[in-house]
Amino acid sequence: MKIIHLAEHRVFEEKGIKRFLLHDSPFVRILNFNLQAGQIFPVHRHPSEGQVSIQVVEGNGWFLGQEEIAISAMAGDILVSDIDEPHGVKADSDMRILVTIAPPF
Amino acid sequence: MKIIHLAEHRVFEEKGIKRFLLHDSPFVRILNFNLQAGQIFPVHRHPSEGQVSIQVVEGNGWFLGQEEIAISAMAGDILVSDIDEPHGVKADSDMRILVTIAPPF
Repeated sequence: MKIIHLAEHRVFEEKGIKRFLLHDSPFVRILNFNLQAGQIFPVHRHPSEGQVSIQVVEGNGWFLGQEEIAISAMAGDILVSDIDEPHGVKADSDMRILVTIAPPF
Repeated sequence: MKIIHLAEHRVFEEKGIKRFLLHDSPFVRILNFNLQAGQIFPVHRHPSEGQVSIQVVEGNGWFLGQEEIAISAMAGDILVSDIDEPHGVKADSDMRILVTIAPPF
């Protein structure tokens, strides 16, 4: 049993997305990515079985998918996709996302 | 790929904790529980392999564990525990939690 305090990881960097690995186990990996306004987590996919959730915890922007799909992403919105589906994020404001991968690849 | 809007599930009920199943797959189950101030998600455990995360998305209260352990729980705090470890939640204010179970039992 452990406690993660998201408030302790609120760091943005000009040079690129700030990444924190918050938890890792054979069952689930939890990460926090902090994007400055304008930063992009490029669309990507991993050839693995499992699912990823991307939760906006602060700020707003866009969930990105294949073929230039963009879906409005605001605090409290969660994207759930297969790990092998293309997914990405674009930040309009400073934006914090919580990413959960199950199982980790 | 699907989008969940947490804002659409902000419902509290006098008669008990309001539960929403937001996503379910062989890999991960995502639930939202909304507790009115004073409501308690009793300490429990499931005899399954895997892990559960409990994220406070609004309000504050306590994460509960075995032997009357209580750990302060505020918005942005996340408890991660094995599914077979005792865990629970007590709400001081109206409180929304996001629960992720991987893999579902």
